[in-house]
Amino acid sequence: MTAYDPNNIFAKILRGEFSCHKVYEDDHVLAFLDIMPRAPGHTLVIPKAPARNILDISAEDFAHVARGAHKIAHAAMQAFKADGIVVQQFSEPAAGQVVYHLHMHVMPRHDGVPLLPPASRREETDVLERHAEKLIAALQTA
Amino acid sequence: MTAYDPNNIFAKILRGEFSCHKVYEDDHVLAFLDIMPRAPGHTLVIPKAPARNILDISAEDFAHVARGAHKIAHAAMQAFKADGIVVQQFSEPAAGQVVYHLHMHVMPRHDGVPLLPPASRREETDVLERHAEKLIAALQTA
Repeated sequence: MTAYDPNNIFAKILRGEFSCHKVYEDDHVLAFLDIMPRAPGHTLVIPKAPARNILDISAEDFAHVARGAHKIAHAAMQAFKADGIVVQQFSEPAAGQVVYHLHMHVMPRHDGVPLLPPASRREETDVLERHAEKLIAALQTA
Repeated sequence: MTAYDPNNIFAKILRGEFSCHKVYEDDHVLAFLDIMPRAPGHTLVIPKAPARNILDISAEDFAHVARGAHKIAHAAMQAFKADGIVVQQFSEPAAGQVVYHLHMHVMPRHDGVPLLPPASRREETDVLERHAEKLIAALQTA
């Protein structure tokens, strides 16, 4: 497997060199909105540990990412009045991975509303800001 | 959310009332092959705790499922000479959930080979047996 590249975009976000619409952070993970959401509220949970994907992350750090996704899922149901949640994580190009820092997608779903294709549309900044606020508010009560 | 139904097929597998192609088990999770694999080696990791999906499972049990998926992913790369791994988990009908006991899909991917559509083809029992043996062997060394 290719080695971890510390200059990937999510590593830059972790170092504060690149901004994001942050919704949650703890000692182990950071969660922020996907700027090309497949559904409103589409969130990425990433480990603070430098890991390319499931193949080089430790089991414990992957468990931390799962706990983060669990937290986001509960809040997203409330914030976006969702009917369901998809959790997805892709490792390596063969699986559709595009950014090489592990990320777990948490996507709110609504009955009868298909997901947009991956990376099909850049969301407006003000919409992302509003969605982040809703999710942050829900995280405080979920 | 609908309450957990203890008569779902995966609950029956956990109670030994229904067989499966088991590849891994510990105190918290069971992993077995999907009988309608979207790719060879497609495995399901389920919690022993009764949970419909991410909305009623505890964060700790979800973390256990993630650790199980991590273990299977590493072994599957070796057993199926895979190029990548997809991890997926669906909650509620709006997200595509069909069996109502939480399950995390771990799917080996190969460059240029698309996943089969969900539930499109029942795999032959002898093929599943052979794949389970390969995965179990890889789990002992991965």
